[in-house]
Amino acid sequence: MNVAIVGASGAVGQEFMRVLAEQQFPITSLRLFGSARSAGRTYNFCGRDIVVEELTHEPDLFKDIDFAFVSAGAGVSKEFAADITRHGAVMIDNSSAFRMDADVPLVVPEVNGEDAFDAPRGIIANPNCTTIQMVVALNPIHKLSPIRRVHVATYQAASGAGASAMQELQEQYTSIANGTEVKVEKFAYQLVSNVIPHVDVFLDNDYTKEEMKMYNETKKIMHAPALDVSATCVRVPVMRAHSEAIWLETESPLEVAAVRKALEEAPGVVVVDNPADKQYPMPLHVAGSDPVYVGRLRRDITHPCGLTMWVVGDQIKKGAALNAVQIAQYMLAHPRK
Amino acid sequence: MNVAIVGASGAVGQEFMRVLAEQQFPITSLRLFGSARSAGRTYNFCGRDIVVEELTHEPDLFKDIDFAFVSAGAGVSKEFAADITRHGAVMIDNSSAFRMDADVPLVVPEVNGEDAFDAPRGIIANPNCTTIQMVVALNPIHKLSPIRRVHVATYQAASGAGASAMQELQEQYTSIANGTEVKVEKFAYQLVSNVIPHVDVFLDNDYTKEEMKMYNETKKIMHAPALDVSATCVRVPVMRAHSEAIWLETESPLEVAAVRKALEEAPGVVVVDNPADKQYPMPLHVAGSDPVYVGRLRRDITHPCGLTMWVVGDQIKKGAALNAVQIAQYMLAHPRK
Repeated sequence: MNVAIVGASGAVGQEFMRVLAEQQFPITSLRLFGSARSAGRTYNFCGRDIVVEELTHEPDLFKDIDFAFVSAGAGVSKEFAADITRHGAVMIDNSSAFRMDADVPLVVPEVNGEDAFDAPRGIIANPNCTTIQMVVALNPIHKLSPIRRVHVATYQAASGAGASAMQELQEQYTSIANGTEVKVEKFAYQLVSNVIPHVDVFLDNDYTKEEMKMYNETKKIMHAPALDVSATCVRVPVMRAHSEAIWLETESPLEVAAVRKALEEAPGVVVVDNPADKQYPMPLHVAGSDPVYVGRLRRDITHPCGLTMWVVGDQIKKGAALNAVQIAQYMLAHPRK
Repeated sequence: MNVAIVGASGAVGQEFMRVLAEQQFPITSLRLFGSARSAGRTYNFCGRDIVVEELTHEPDLFKDIDFAFVSAGAGVSKEFAADITRHGAVMIDNSSAFRMDADVPLVVPEVNGEDAFDAPRGIIANPNCTTIQMVVALNPIHKLSPIRRVHVATYQAASGAGASAMQELQEQYTSIANGTEVKVEKFAYQLVSNVIPHVDVFLDNDYTKEEMKMYNETKKIMHAPALDVSATCVRVPVMRAHSEAIWLETESPLEVAAVRKALEEAPGVVVVDNPADKQYPMPLHVAGSDPVYVGRLRRDITHPCGLTMWVVGDQIKKGAALNAVQIAQYMLAHPRK
């Protein structure tokens, strides 16, 4: 496969390279694209040095590309989608630009991999990180009995705001350790020793865009228009894995043991749930790992059809780069329908 | 009033002194008690140096005390309750020792101050910090229409684990800034750059004791046996204010504007809720403040009778020392029934 990465210098772009190597993705050639500022930088991929090319509207720039992994923000995705897909490349887009478009599938391979083949514009959207890890954990339960309602409180890492935001958090650790002034640029407020109930912009219904992504994207990925999600999305001083406290209600009451078994057997899920031995998923341990980790599974003691659980996933891997690469792997592994 | 503080060297004990001074509590004499290890230490209170006395079973140790503020753990409270109350002192106990005893009132003055007078054993229990700040925010809504269900995810500060835990978090900042080994003693795992879904011990139903305190104490304080709470309690790297993402269902649907008005008029509550100007409560700003702060108030888009909000309170102040002192103030301000 001839592969391109757009936004190669970003946190997700860098992770695309690591994931493609780790997954031994069948690469014939890899090309890297970025802004004029990034162009000319060199990155090593599997022993070869690759120079970042400037992303332009040159008509044949993506001529022989099979898969383009794109993570340079919604504006870049919108501006360059036609260029990227012109000659038949499959554009797997990490931005929010096309996610809710009716003619763009929104795919988490463990949940709706087959939707990837219904992409008339050549664009497949990678869902938002908080949604991806949630639906991987919800879907096995939804198959036992349809889920009707979800409440989710997130504990989101700095990585969701990009590589420079992670750097800012690291610098804030130094400032607070030394008692010097904490500099704030990337987040709305100081993040170290704080939590900020504000991710992405606020909308008219007083939810944030991040929170409404969890509402809208979950319905689309799970083909579940009746499944409603109310989210509160919160940034916490953690480097790169997101955590979620989730309550859900199913149509029929389920036994916790049956739910646990379904999760243990589900693709992409690892159950870490042994409170007696202090075993539950935490971002410190999950950072850098591929699966979605589920723990703290128990009854919702306020409702006969309720369950609650704690879900942790690496925001840059399954929340972004890994899921995108898995979409391409799914398409290569399954006969086109 | 002759006042005693038991556990004077702890985080809450120290805060008792600050709060008594700030509130200009009518003090004739203040005595400080502690373990053999703390005895002999001197603390300054309003210009006077007071030496910590050792807490013993000497029968007349609390002879002339009117109010004893006790925060030295459940074991100490149980062992010394009879000594403290023998001569008529009112024991306001910050531990979990007596909270669910039928003959011990559990009091948050804004919610059930009058219960303080029904204390046949001379003991009044101060609720758990996470419960206090939640019921202060729930009660004004409960008066508009009874609340039936609550889901709450907490973001709990280090202070809940005591002064030495706060010190450990500060040392962890230094370690992570310098890239040296992070030492862990007070928490189950490294707290810096992590979140830990585990506060207090695990119980048979796979909830933690902390989570079941929110279930049981809320019912008792609000006199609402039908109000069920499912909590997920999580420790976050924050120094001393707790945050809570709360969903609630009322018997009848309520208008958000009416709920906002009730909260704005409620004692002990400050509404900070102007997303357009990035105004919402955060632990960094709330640390050291008296009120309970409410923001992010909006509809629960999954239920016609649902609301969701974000509540932040200082764990050592309203979550512990301030609430205890307010109980004494309530008793002094109201005629005994």
